[in-house]
Amino acid sequence: MSIPRPDLVVLDVNETLSDLAPLADAFGDVGLDPGDVEAWFAGVLRDAFALGMLGDNPSFAEIGGALLRARLTAAGHPDPSEGAQQVLGRFVALSPHPDVVPGLLALAELGCRIVTLSNGSADVARALLADTAAGKVVEDYLAVAEADAWKPDARAYAHALAAAGVAAERAVLVAVHPWDVEGARRAGLQTAWVNRTGAVYPDHFGPADREVASVVDLAAVLGELPR
Amino acid sequence: MSIPRPDLVVLDVNETLSDLAPLADAFGDVGLDPGDVEAWFAGVLRDAFALGMLGDNPSFAEIGGALLRARLTAAGHPDPSEGAQQVLGRFVALSPHPDVVPGLLALAELGCRIVTLSNGSADVARALLADTAAGKVVEDYLAVAEADAWKPDARAYAHALAAAGVAAERAVLVAVHPWDVEGARRAGLQTAWVNRTGAVYPDHFGPADREVASVVDLAAVLGELPR
Repeated sequence: MSIPRPDLVVLDVNETLSDLAPLADAFGDVGLDPGDVEAWFAGVLRDAFALGMLGDNPSFAEIGGALLRARLTAAGHPDPSEGAQQVLGRFVALSPHPDVVPGLLALAELGCRIVTLSNGSADVARALLADTAAGKVVEDYLAVAEADAWKPDARAYAHALAAAGVAAERAVLVAVHPWDVEGARRAGLQTAWVNRTGAVYPDHFGPADREVASVVDLAAVLGELPR
Repeated sequence: MSIPRPDLVVLDVNETLSDLAPLADAFGDVGLDPGDVEAWFAGVLRDAFALGMLGDNPSFAEIGGALLRARLTAAGHPDPSEGAQQVLGRFVALSPHPDVVPGLLALAELGCRIVTLSNGSADVARALLADTAAGKVVEDYLAVAEADAWKPDARAYAHALAAAGVAAERAVLVAVHPWDVEGARRAGLQTAWVNRTGAVYPDHFGPADREVASVVDLAAVLGELPR
């Protein structure tokens, strides 16, 4: 292998660490179609990236809330603001996928440093992990609000590298989202695409250095590399 | 009114002029969930805007096709490439909303020049309008492929203004998508948000100069302005 074991693991948060499945119930509870979670989440990223193209660094919660209120209004909800708060409350109280905590412990065991880097609030990642067994191996919870731009802009990844004091080529970005892999790849980081569902990687993005089925799998793969 | 009647109407195409409703049947015909059209379309824009943040000017058809193939593979379709072609074939053979042709004729009657500006292929807009009664009043079918970037990047709107030889403040961008309104607004164009469904405009984007219920309604509103 020509790629050395990374010193730093930079973890995406939403959907990479957190299991969004309970949001379907949250949608149903406020009268939205449980099948519309994917469309809502893609719409949040669409609007945020549109603002990113215009040079902005918007708030995930504000866009997420606005698009929930629009859906709730269309669905005839009596109090769209309250309904949106209810769904966002579930969004910040999700659980990690079952492979996340053991995977992070295994990565730490290898000597990797671990940070999260989210387009959303650092508090969401903290709430997800801090009280788990993996809480003690996560060195920092980072958010693009402190950078100049959202991922996939290179400045977002640069923020994590600067905060940890690690060179791009000694860090690996770990994400389920191909657009995040692509941004990190262009910023010079190593990349790992977490593919829990046997999905197809879209060919409009450059490939990840590694495709893994879980964070546990990632630790196993990295463990075989020289330090 | 402080905003003068525009000399040039710049029309978004997908969903603004074309009725995407038949895509639900197209999804169903290839074994996809008809309710997933919105998620697919939002995902195409999400990935294209991500590439836009990275400075690229990608192909709508390539991204649309890749994300269809990914869905078809996940759904167990025996030939995802063929299935994706089938859906994209329907995408380029959509019909305009009922208000579009009479609305464009009324805009032309007011003396407005009319062009389309799409993030997709100019051929899609041409196929949608050229053989209708409005075909003769559409001066040009423009696409961001000839610009340096997708909408909402300012360069996309500048391409249409340069092609028509019109100053930004004498042109109006017409779209159902708030992100498109926002891009045009920042590029200095007048803006009209077409809201056929009584939707809520999300407050993470600046407001349109005008909200109209249809292209016919737009012509009525502009007809009351001084030349």
